[in-house]
Amino acid sequence: MSSDIFVDKIRNLKSKEEFIIPENKYEEKENLNYESLFALSNGYLGIRGSHEEGTKSTLPYFFINGVFDKSETFMRELVALPNPLGIKFYIEKELIGIENCEILKYSRELDIKNGILWKCLILKDKYGRETKIEGCRFVSRKNIHRIGIIYNLTPLNYGGIIEVESETDGRIINFLDAPRFKVKHTKLVRNEKLNSSGGNYIEVATRDNELHVGVGSYVEAYKDEKLILNNRKFNAFGELTSEFGDVTLETGEVATFIKYISVFTENDVDKDDIKLKSENEITGFLNQGIFEELKEHCLKYKSMWDIADIKIDGDKELNKAVRFNIFHLMSTGSEVNDNINVGAKLLTGEEYGGHAFWDTELFMLPFFSYVFPNIARNLETYRYKLLNAAKENARKNGFKGAQYPWESADDGSEQCPAYTIEPDGSCYRCYVADYEHHVTAAIAYGIYNYTRITGDIDFFCNKGIYILIETARFWASRCEYISEKDRYEIRKVTGPDEWHEPVDNNVYTNYLARWNLLYVKRSLDKIKAENSKIYYSILEETHFTDEESTLWREISDKIYLPKMEGVNILEQFEGYFKLEDCIIEKYDKNDWPIRPEILKTIPVYKTRLIKQADIVMLLHLLREEFTEQEIKDNYYYYEKRTLHGSSLSPSIYAITGLKIGDAKKAYRYLKRAAFIDLLNLQKNTREGIHAANAGGVWQVVIFGFAGVDIDEAGELSIKPSMPKEWRSLKFRLHHREKLLEITVYGDNRYEVKNIS
Amino acid sequence: MSSDIFVDKIRNLKSKEEFIIPENKYEEKENLNYESLFALSNGYLGIRGSHEEGTKSTLPYFFINGVFDKSETFMRELVALPNPLGIKFYIEKELIGIENCEILKYSRELDIKNGILWKCLILKDKYGRETKIEGCRFVSRKNIHRIGIIYNLTPLNYGGIIEVESETDGRIINFLDAPRFKVKHTKLVRNEKLNSSGGNYIEVATRDNELHVGVGSYVEAYKDEKLILNNRKFNAFGELTSEFGDVTLETGEVATFIKYISVFTENDVDKDDIKLKSENEITGFLNQGIFEELKEHCLKYKSMWDIADIKIDGDKELNKAVRFNIFHLMSTGSEVNDNINVGAKLLTGEEYGGHAFWDTELFMLPFFSYVFPNIARNLETYRYKLLNAAKENARKNGFKGAQYPWESADDGSEQCPAYTIEPDGSCYRCYVADYEHHVTAAIAYGIYNYTRITGDIDFFCNKGIYILIETARFWASRCEYISEKDRYEIRKVTGPDEWHEPVDNNVYTNYLARWNLLYVKRSLDKIKAENSKIYYSILEETHFTDEESTLWREISDKIYLPKMEGVNILEQFEGYFKLEDCIIEKYDKNDWPIRPEILKTIPVYKTRLIKQADIVMLLHLLREEFTEQEIKDNYYYYEKRTLHGSSLSPSIYAITGLKIGDAKKAYRYLKRAAFIDLLNLQKNTREGIHAANAGGVWQVVIFGFAGVDIDEAGELSIKPSMPKEWRSLKFRLHHREKLLEITVYGDNRYEVKNIS
Repeated sequence: MSSDIFVDKIRNLKSKEEFIIPENKYEEKENLNYESLFALSNGYLGIRGSHEEGTKSTLPYFFINGVFDKSETFMRELVALPNPLGIKFYIEKELIGIENCEILKYSRELDIKNGILWKCLILKDKYGRETKIEGCRFVSRKNIHRIGIIYNLTPLNYGGIIEVESETDGRIINFLDAPRFKVKHTKLVRNEKLNSSGGNYIEVATRDNELHVGVGSYVEAYKDEKLILNNRKFNAFGELTSEFGDVTLETGEVATFIKYISVFTENDVDKDDIKLKSENEITGFLNQGIFEELKEHCLKYKSMWDIADIKIDGDKELNKAVRFNIFHLMSTGSEVNDNINVGAKLLTGEEYGGHAFWDTELFMLPFFSYVFPNIARNLETYRYKLLNAAKENARKNGFKGAQYPWESADDGSEQCPAYTIEPDGSCYRCYVADYEHHVTAAIAYGIYNYTRITGDIDFFCNKGIYILIETARFWASRCEYISEKDRYEIRKVTGPDEWHEPVDNNVYTNYLARWNLLYVKRSLDKIKAENSKIYYSILEETHFTDEESTLWREISDKIYLPKMEGVNILEQFEGYFKLEDCIIEKYDKNDWPIRPEILKTIPVYKTRLIKQADIVMLLHLLREEFTEQEIKDNYYYYEKRTLHGSSLSPSIYAITGLKIGDAKKAYRYLKRAAFIDLLNLQKNTREGIHAANAGGVWQVVIFGFAGVDIDEAGELSIKPSMPKEWRSLKFRLHHREKLLEITVYGDNRYEVKNIS
Repeated sequence: MSSDIFVDKIRNLKSKEEFIIPENKYEEKENLNYESLFALSNGYLGIRGSHEEGTKSTLPYFFINGVFDKSETFMRELVALPNPLGIKFYIEKELIGIENCEILKYSRELDIKNGILWKCLILKDKYGRETKIEGCRFVSRKNIHRIGIIYNLTPLNYGGIIEVESETDGRIINFLDAPRFKVKHTKLVRNEKLNSSGGNYIEVATRDNELHVGVGSYVEAYKDEKLILNNRKFNAFGELTSEFGDVTLETGEVATFIKYISVFTENDVDKDDIKLKSENEITGFLNQGIFEELKEHCLKYKSMWDIADIKIDGDKELNKAVRFNIFHLMSTGSEVNDNINVGAKLLTGEEYGGHAFWDTELFMLPFFSYVFPNIARNLETYRYKLLNAAKENARKNGFKGAQYPWESADDGSEQCPAYTIEPDGSCYRCYVADYEHHVTAAIAYGIYNYTRITGDIDFFCNKGIYILIETARFWASRCEYISEKDRYEIRKVTGPDEWHEPVDNNVYTNYLARWNLLYVKRSLDKIKAENSKIYYSILEETHFTDEESTLWREISDKIYLPKMEGVNILEQFEGYFKLEDCIIEKYDKNDWPIRPEILKTIPVYKTRLIKQADIVMLLHLLREEFTEQEIKDNYYYYEKRTLHGSSLSPSIYAITGLKIGDAKKAYRYLKRAAFIDLLNLQKNTREGIHAANAGGVWQVVIFGFAGVDIDEAGELSIKPSMPKEWRSLKFRLHHREKLLEITVYGDNRYEVKNIS
């Protein structure tokens, strides 16, 4: 290939501005945010948008979903693996780097249409030599074990020798910039040449389970179709593996540097074959050519966007932000692996250890179920595969059935630590896992939701129903019969609103427990009616008895659902109405609630102020159980008392508000949610993308503004509440066997086309 | 101890301004220079003046003299060992560092009187928190396996938790900032807690010889006599070992952080005991207390300065610069180890691999012989111990006797590579080791010089004479008899002037060969006369025969010593006078020669322009063989043709000029030499201190301006040529059994006091 043609070829792939998230200036203090924003994932691995050359401020994490380790920390967390991005260019020892040179041009662009991170730099070193570096990186969606980096380098006003160092850095540790928490989750197994022609290979093993991970790479340089890399030399520097080479260029000549990377773990291939597999993968990559790989990668993204895209006519920037959230969600989900889930920060940061929370089922699963049902099925199968672990968890805690962990990694045990170390070094007793039992209801609800959207009866009858029965058993055992009141209660529990912890009879939890018990019953009746053979095999398998059925009915009938006397207002938990009342009265210029003054005098848990959607979340999930008036009354009551201290809150308020005709804040909520990371509104984007929020953004558009709804039978309905800013909204959904294209117009008219 | 008292105690140790080399501003681009300038050594180990917290631009080398390794490089070079300096302070994750904070105050001071590197910083972080960090580091001259670091930290306008990370960094590699040359000379053996109370221990082994080196450390923090370090935690991060802890301080409170470091190698202690020894050393260090250690260290330096100091009345800055050079020389020499020498960059940089050159004998040895004769004896014993290796080297090259290598590391084999890789990647055939045979004469001359200065007959008769006989044998075999001319010649050789390479009959080499042959004869005669038993045992040991004696006489008589016909001018080598003549006519404002225009048209080797003192070096060494007129004529002839392309040149010209009454440049030469590193005049101070030049500085003052001379019999003479700038000059010299204090006045009067 000719370098020039090559440059053009890749340039031609770059998407139009509406799919480009730009970074036009390098600022050290913004770098960690961009590392999260510009992270690339392919369902298998994820790598942050760190600069190949390394920068002072960086958390250059490379994760493979499912590779967890605990060691001396409090939980099994995603392991910072050897980072293979390293490419450094030098003019005889002088790094051509953004922190060493004067930056004449700086541009990075996340191309969310193609899943490519573009970069273009013109750097001037202290001797006045100007160098242009232009290219991209991608993690192949076509071949998920491949990562490719391409840079065209041009000495603009000098000629000479350009040196390149291609590194894989096994020295990266978790919590790299937090001295108190730093931890290394791997040990070095080997660091050696990939094969006789060169290249790097580093293999590490996780410390607890000795799970091996191998990272191979090979660097090459081309000029006018010729290989031009000279003086290739491999070095092992402890846990850093490095390949050196140089090229000679005249002024204006272009060298194309390509780094071919391959990654495998013991989960993919027999331990003893990891290196061979890595080597073969790179050989295949070289033979195919990076451009072909890149083209196939783009085609794969194209096919994903064909279903996932949302087109908003009327607000370009918001449209781009919505797409940005979709991009990260869909990049992370896996169509091929049902042993992994999607972490609260996707694969874009180490916060929350890569664990799956209720975020998956209640925030992200609707998106996946409607758009990528294969991925949704894998997410739910992950829960099924960890059913036994959830049963063990229930047993340990003195309950029956299956209790899903608040935080779930690879083995399904509770990964939310009972103790954590605070930034000040003190030990903190963390009660979340002890009390936030509603996660188990969320898992059950996820099964229900996935099934009604996709109609995946096979999954439901062979996997989902088992989860539902066991979670119902958990709730049955979790409820206490209070004989003097002749009612069932769930005491000492924390609802979605974590500012009141723990409480008795959180109405959200109680409702969902009841729903779980009743829904299983309904489902079993339905299966019995439709296929009694399956029904009886389920009964046999689960030892489900009539006594149990009767008990569940009794609990459902008698579970305590506190509410305000005489009116529609549900009581968030028993005693909530006895707390100091306080209404949010001031809002900032973005209509964001300002913390009431009262909080300076009494702690929040003594007030009715809440962190996030709790009862409103209930109204959202079980809307069929409430009248529109009930929904309205409760929405307005709690809306005035919710401070949205979690990114999981505004989207639910927006959707519910739109449902009952309160559109006044929905658009702003959407904007806030859509830009939460792009504008670093929560000040913690450096830790990773807010995955649940991304799912929430999608829900606000689809369920809120487009008004898509579905009932238990799977019947789809559409009742748009288009914002005045939008002229039209277009998107596609899978619904059972059909692929629908839905167009909504500014006047709330809509069209549904079956395009399957 | 009370922190405040402690602060005062160490503050009181700080020397007066005349012994302080300051750095008052942190500039990234100057950091590597200061790392060399502020390197500390104690005869056993050397560590560069790198910041404990780490900086972007750094070569943080830690060397132990004698620990060499070759691996895939071209020569055995000083190994970059795990660097134990690391101390980083954080306010909850925020590094309190010079590259992260606004610097309100910055001061580092090399205290050359006490061998202490002082530091005082006031740093303001991005939240406005101001922190004062004040303290010092030292490598103990009293207990050479100990390094101590003390920092008093004061939060000036805030209170809270300060975190500390104490690291030993085993990831440091040689040629750290030169991608093409990077090499790791060690492999990790263990990285673990020092003992049950905490601390770090890292053990590495060199790759070729598996020589083990262990570095232990322990960090502690004190406030008002109490230990205050909390949450101590050890971490092994691959090859980085790290100890974490925190302290809680209120505004204005002072915490004193102390890092106790110990270092041992397999050369010091049995391999299996290195860790235990390290641990015990740290226990001893802790028990003794760092302040006691520091006091004893200062006393040791005081005792060294008592002999080594030069007091110049009339030029304070120059006096300080002279002392700076003495400081580095004397810090590097070892009184206890005769297996090591002094490298061309001391232990302050990796350039020249820590190898000993002729620099030792001709530039540094005079200083050591007169000031620290014990160190001088070790330097010469090192050569004796490597006599067999020199014999093997001669044998390999087809010669007899002993041929010393141009570059010498630990095993005495030639370490000057035949091939090197140039910065542009090309392979370069390096002929230095093939032709610069004069190093062997320098070794012989060193024996002679050391003996006449110290009168160490024991060394001479038991060690030195064997070197002299074997080097004489080398010269005898190196000389060819040219029958048609009835003379002996040394063909294909390079003299000190490396710009003419190789030549026939370099007159410097031929003279020194002749001197070697004759001096052995004279010495043997003298030994025979004084102690025939020793004489015969030498003969027996060396198989020295009458025939050999006769041959040496004949060679001495008939060796070709080319000179200009009819006049006194020696011909630098055969054919030199046939080269294009060219005289230096222009000098820059510092009186430094400007390269003549002719060099733009013809290469230097075709001209009579020379790099450095060659014949003038001969006149300096063998001055007794020449009349004053001969010295004058040759000096003036060559002075006009010498471009001083080596730092080994100006000092020799200065001394010789002063001897024959040419004082016009000597003072400027001295200034240039004295400030060569302090002002980075050669632009390569980052690579390390110019050790030979440092010895040259001392020689110019003592042999040049003070006019100290010594004849073969050891008779001292003094003939001062004081510069007009100086009112007086005072110094001390050992001369045989006596310690002399010599004071020279501005009018060249002088006093000699025997103060032994």
